[in-house]
Amino acid sequence: MDMTEIGKRAKKASGFAALMTTNEKNELLCAAAKALLENADSILTANAEDLKRAEAAGMPAPLMDRLALDRKRIEGMADGLLQIAGLSDPIGETVEMSVLKSGLTVGKRRVPMGVVGIIYEARPNVTSDAFGLCLKSGNAVILKGGSDAICSNKAIVDVFRDTAKSLGANPDIVQLIEDTSREAAAALMKMNGYVDVLIPRGGAGLIKAVVENSTVPVIETGVGNCHIYIDDSADIEMGIRILINAKTQRPGVCNAAESLLVSEKAAESFLPAAVKALVEKNVEVRGCERTMEICGGLPVVPACEEDYGREYLDYIISVKVVKDIDEAIAHIAEYSTGHSEAIITESYKNAEKFTREVDSAAVYVNASTRFTDGNEFGYGAEIGISTQKLHARGPMGLKALTSTKFVIFGNGQIRE
Amino acid sequence: MDMTEIGKRAKKASGFAALMTTNEKNELLCAAAKALLENADSILTANAEDLKRAEAAGMPAPLMDRLALDRKRIEGMADGLLQIAGLSDPIGETVEMSVLKSGLTVGKRRVPMGVVGIIYEARPNVTSDAFGLCLKSGNAVILKGGSDAICSNKAIVDVFRDTAKSLGANPDIVQLIEDTSREAAAALMKMNGYVDVLIPRGGAGLIKAVVENSTVPVIETGVGNCHIYIDDSADIEMGIRILINAKTQRPGVCNAAESLLVSEKAAESFLPAAVKALVEKNVEVRGCERTMEICGGLPVVPACEEDYGREYLDYIISVKVVKDIDEAIAHIAEYSTGHSEAIITESYKNAEKFTREVDSAAVYVNASTRFTDGNEFGYGAEIGISTQKLHARGPMGLKALTSTKFVIFGNGQIRE
Repeated sequence: MDMTEIGKRAKKASGFAALMTTNEKNELLCAAAKALLENADSILTANAEDLKRAEAAGMPAPLMDRLALDRKRIEGMADGLLQIAGLSDPIGETVEMSVLKSGLTVGKRRVPMGVVGIIYEARPNVTSDAFGLCLKSGNAVILKGGSDAICSNKAIVDVFRDTAKSLGANPDIVQLIEDTSREAAAALMKMNGYVDVLIPRGGAGLIKAVVENSTVPVIETGVGNCHIYIDDSADIEMGIRILINAKTQRPGVCNAAESLLVSEKAAESFLPAAVKALVEKNVEVRGCERTMEICGGLPVVPACEEDYGREYLDYIISVKVVKDIDEAIAHIAEYSTGHSEAIITESYKNAEKFTREVDSAAVYVNASTRFTDGNEFGYGAEIGISTQKLHARGPMGLKALTSTKFVIFGNGQIRE
Repeated sequence: MDMTEIGKRAKKASGFAALMTTNEKNELLCAAAKALLENADSILTANAEDLKRAEAAGMPAPLMDRLALDRKRIEGMADGLLQIAGLSDPIGETVEMSVLKSGLTVGKRRVPMGVVGIIYEARPNVTSDAFGLCLKSGNAVILKGGSDAICSNKAIVDVFRDTAKSLGANPDIVQLIEDTSREAAAALMKMNGYVDVLIPRGGAGLIKAVVENSTVPVIETGVGNCHIYIDDSADIEMGIRILINAKTQRPGVCNAAESLLVSEKAAESFLPAAVKALVEKNVEVRGCERTMEICGGLPVVPACEEDYGREYLDYIISVKVVKDIDEAIAHIAEYSTGHSEAIITESYKNAEKFTREVDSAAVYVNASTRFTDGNEFGYGAEIGISTQKLHARGPMGLKALTSTKFVIFGNGQIRE
């Protein structure tokens, strides 16, 4: 099917989705969850095809793991849909309402975005999550998954479309672009008039390509070069506990710490113990000169300028000793991707200063950056973590997939 | 100065602006208003140069009028800044705050956008308004005005920068791109990392160029193909009053009506009187076949398909008789630019249906579309009217120039 036809169908289906009642949406979500389980065999067969192709092409093991489905993961997808059914419906809420001097009553009403485009890599679970979140927020969704997962995605989307049809809903509320070429992705990025927002989910390269080539509004997600700053007055034991959690609890995700900054005043008491704890967890430590000086005898390799800007997504961390909190804030302003940063401090003044002056989506005092997550923040599920300032910032739940419109009630008012 | 240098300076100044207190911002706004009046002569001299050049180039009279300044208009600009000083400061407000199951306290704090870019045409008053609104919302602004107004803009921006300097503020909170070439505008549209949002203000061509070429996030503003729909049960007299107001009170603006839809049931009683009233106001009526049939004897010219999609910004209106409210809503979905639409009805059911199903920034019941305006909506001043769904929709006041960040307070929490 050509891209314009997909766009037209999505636009039409978005009109349908926008007018679905909460009950209708929840009924469809529950039916889709049930259908995923009932069709697990055919989904697994399709997934096996993808895996076979991926293996033949020499896909690395961690990516194979992301691509692979089993019965338990399909149950996880179904549970995700049921959870979304349990979230409250954001559509129709009146955000503000007031009476103007003209006597008009003006309300700001929450409405769906319309058509949401999602461009992602080879993770079939995103197919299911995106469908659920877009449906619950009254949107139609156009999915463009990675070519490696095309058979799995097609099987999953077929289940959703069949379920929609069986309940009398417009099946085009979810469409998969089956053409896995770059040209199809490029076309999706230019579908102004059909697509209201495009959300890329994946690595830095994918996100950059979408931001640079899209004329449709984009929400930039996810790259996280997250910092932990140990202040003069930090509780050393707490600092080490948070550092180890932020770096090693799940190093491959965007809210994991990638860089440690330590105030000169805390450096001698903090660094040797912290580096020892990192090394015990098999973390490679890349330190500045001062770090190496303080940690003599411990396995610290020299950090180069580039290290401070890296999102390793691995058991590696850069470490720098800074003069004070001002230098820490300036360093973060220069190298951070604006995702999540934490200060460990016992100082009221410095906690206030750090939260005020650090310009990132999530700024922590005495907690691990790993909490930047839709589920942890109470949104139930997330469509991604925005690192831009327009529209949504930080973990994006259902509300991030909505817009508002002004509804104005008069009794004949004209403008003088 | 090269564009990267402008970007770097703006980014640095945005850090300064973000930390200005409300009092500091208001003091600067009031001083800038005073300085505009004190330097009125030099601004008028600069404006005279622009006008001379524009006249020699044969600029049409309405555009000359938009470009021209006089003492009264400079007073208007100064008053605008004082009004902005009187608005409440959006920065620092905590939008939501809650305690998570982990014991973390999470707040969503309103923060400035950072660096705002404004691309506009030859209206020097936009220079002053944009400076005031961006400053009050804690942002640095980069202005790219039309080449026709370059001397006026330079004079105005010099006044603001000098005022900032005299108060010890970073003058780069407002910068004018003095290079009026297309290349400079194109460079501004690609300044990701320096510019957080770009707002085009002007005609459809300018807006389209920015949307298509910008990699920086854009807020699309202003094109308005606004509709008035006369429902079966409309109060005829009210309908005519609102129609005439929406079409003729100020036809050159984006919230003026451009198209009239009339339900078949109301057509015979409404159209002859309405068309007569339009003609008396010198409006050219372009009607469908049925309109011409009903208005025999009145000067109605035939409308072609294209007329329904036009934003005339002039004393012209397209008129179409539709079967019923469903056809009216479908017509609006096809031809509208998503700005403002009104239904005139006495039916509770149809009022509810129209406000629910019409997908535009402002949807009216029994009032003129001319009210879609930041001042009328109580925002004090506006930076434009957004016709996109991402981030801001409808009239944009100070809050549209802000973002949020999550601020999280813990006492040692780590993720399990």
